[in-house]
Amino acid sequence: MSSAAKSVTFEGRFAMHRGGHLESPTLVYETWGKLNEARDNAILVFSGLSPSAHAASSEEDQSAGWWEDMIGSGLPLDTDRFYVIAVNSLGSCFGSTGPASVNVETGDLYRLSFPVLTLEDVAEAAYLVVRHLGIEQLESVVGCSMGGMSGLAYCVRHPGSTRSFVSISSATRALPFSIAVRSLQREMIRSDPKWRDGNYDRSDPPLVGQRLARKLGMITYRSAAEWEQRFGRERVTFQDDSGYKFKIDFSVESYLENQANKFSGAFDANCYLYLSRASDLFDLAEHGGSLQAGFKRLELERALVIGVETDILFPIHQQRELAEGLLATCADTKLVELDSIKGHDSFLVDMDAFRPVICDFFGT
Amino acid sequence: MSSAAKSVTFEGRFAMHRGGHLESPTLVYETWGKLNEARDNAILVFSGLSPSAHAASSEEDQSAGWWEDMIGSGLPLDTDRFYVIAVNSLGSCFGSTGPASVNVETGDLYRLSFPVLTLEDVAEAAYLVVRHLGIEQLESVVGCSMGGMSGLAYCVRHPGSTRSFVSISSATRALPFSIAVRSLQREMIRSDPKWRDGNYDRSDPPLVGQRLARKLGMITYRSAAEWEQRFGRERVTFQDDSGYKFKIDFSVESYLENQANKFSGAFDANCYLYLSRASDLFDLAEHGGSLQAGFKRLELERALVIGVETDILFPIHQQRELAEGLLATCADTKLVELDSIKGHDSFLVDMDAFRPVICDFFGT
Repeated sequence: MSSAAKSVTFEGRFAMHRGGHLESPTLVYETWGKLNEARDNAILVFSGLSPSAHAASSEEDQSAGWWEDMIGSGLPLDTDRFYVIAVNSLGSCFGSTGPASVNVETGDLYRLSFPVLTLEDVAEAAYLVVRHLGIEQLESVVGCSMGGMSGLAYCVRHPGSTRSFVSISSATRALPFSIAVRSLQREMIRSDPKWRDGNYDRSDPPLVGQRLARKLGMITYRSAAEWEQRFGRERVTFQDDSGYKFKIDFSVESYLENQANKFSGAFDANCYLYLSRASDLFDLAEHGGSLQAGFKRLELERALVIGVETDILFPIHQQRELAEGLLATCADTKLVELDSIKGHDSFLVDMDAFRPVICDFFGT
Repeated sequence: MSSAAKSVTFEGRFAMHRGGHLESPTLVYETWGKLNEARDNAILVFSGLSPSAHAASSEEDQSAGWWEDMIGSGLPLDTDRFYVIAVNSLGSCFGSTGPASVNVETGDLYRLSFPVLTLEDVAEAAYLVVRHLGIEQLESVVGCSMGGMSGLAYCVRHPGSTRSFVSISSATRALPFSIAVRSLQREMIRSDPKWRDGNYDRSDPPLVGQRLARKLGMITYRSAAEWEQRFGRERVTFQDDSGYKFKIDFSVESYLENQANKFSGAFDANCYLYLSRASDLFDLAEHGGSLQAGFKRLELERALVIGVETDILFPIHQQRELAEGLLATCADTKLVELDSIKGHDSFLVDMDAFRPVICDFFGT
């Protein structure tokens, strides 16, 4: 836990959406800017699957955060005006209670005894943090990727608790292509003998499976068009074919290798499995019996949906579906389709495309 | 080897394109229809990575082949008119010499001592079969997927040896998205402890890795649009969440599981690695120093390029590139873009779309 991270433990039972409970869960969060006297200038940011609460640097922790170019003085989520909150997702492994935490009822690590996690639980835990901060109504809920679905869960379960909602490269629910990809990523980890049905040695985790899963992730987070421009058929170095036994040959393979090396080991394998499945399980239509009914439960004054044409994980037609659904009950809904070639990850790496859209929405 | 399969062993050294050699390799092939007296009615079919030479049924072998609806009396490759030849690729494991074969020079299985395999080698081996059958010039070379690149290798190395060329869902060379996918599939197999650096027990092969690789294959062979229509968010059965430990939940997961079960074990793991890498290595531009130079070496009277808009492995812009390149030296080149939603595999499963195009080309 970094020096900027704050921690709160909610004493008592936290009932999980699909059954079971957590005893006195802890949530870790960071904040930037100042809550005003009216307590109505807060923006809650929901992250994708893997980030911590460290979305941006601050005086207390000057290391760059995962959305460093988006949160700060003079930036789109302008901390001169807004009080920005990022919570490490329930079920994650950066301070918040998850499968890698100790179950205080047993004294053992949860591992697979952790109840089924849903994005409704992730949203509910964040809601507790917001209430803990004395905030009745948020200025906005902003969610990226999985976080967009967590944001929808937040809004649908607490109508009127935020004035606006911003969905970035997300959807009302996952479609089978994305489910297949994530299911295969989970199978890669579970297939690693070191996973040991979730009971892995924490000093010797299933890194082989985690590396494979990360590489598949990168294949779906970026776009074929970007890689064609960036790598083409470039080779890493001269290869002596005579001794060449399926090592890295092309630059794109080297890129994936570097990405896998950076990520693996930084994230707990069981936490990954739980959050990945939560992304598959979420469906706005479960709130009311249909998507239409789900949208009707939202009480938003304004909404913004941003999508990227080259995103294969949350494709552009899902952005349109989400915007149309929001529009039915929130007249001030805007859809922005960006033509970035960086795919799903554009919101992390193509700031020039995203910055003006977010600035326009918040008047920053 | 089925009863319809014929086998020929080419005595002597077969020099491999990237160095090394095979001693007296064997090639297995099947034929349908009759070679006419002029010996000029033969069509050579190059398959994708995994099929055997059994492309269609015959009197000798009545089991359905991998292109059953395409080859036969009254079908697009009409055996009443044409003599159709399919060769099990060099490097494969259905009778032709490959990494799973015995090296006659050592008496041991080749395994990873097999030289680096290229599609030029696959093409050259098929050329030997064609010459063995007493054919100087083919009516056509038809290649699907990887087979389209094998077909290009055949044409570029033996200009004038075929009058026409048909490329189906293939390309001049692989782009980084496809390379990344195949590289990851190979890594999945290599990461299975049972692979043992290629020295696996043949009765206990690296099936876990092979199953993962097959599932990733299926994700790229079909399309997100097809799965959205076919599976949506349908569940397999009622799941009791309390005992639910990352088993199959969605129908699309069950589908992948069935596909993996069908395929795994049927294909030798090392052969898969060699053929997969050969698909990455092929580049028409290596024949002459540029794509343009490569195309100039082809001497075709007619060409047909068929592609599918939802194909993510050999995307539609590669079909256009291939057709434009062919057109530069072969005025009678036709490009057909099909809007099938079945992705790369359309040529195997969407016959209604492909049949009329092939019929039109061959006047069948």
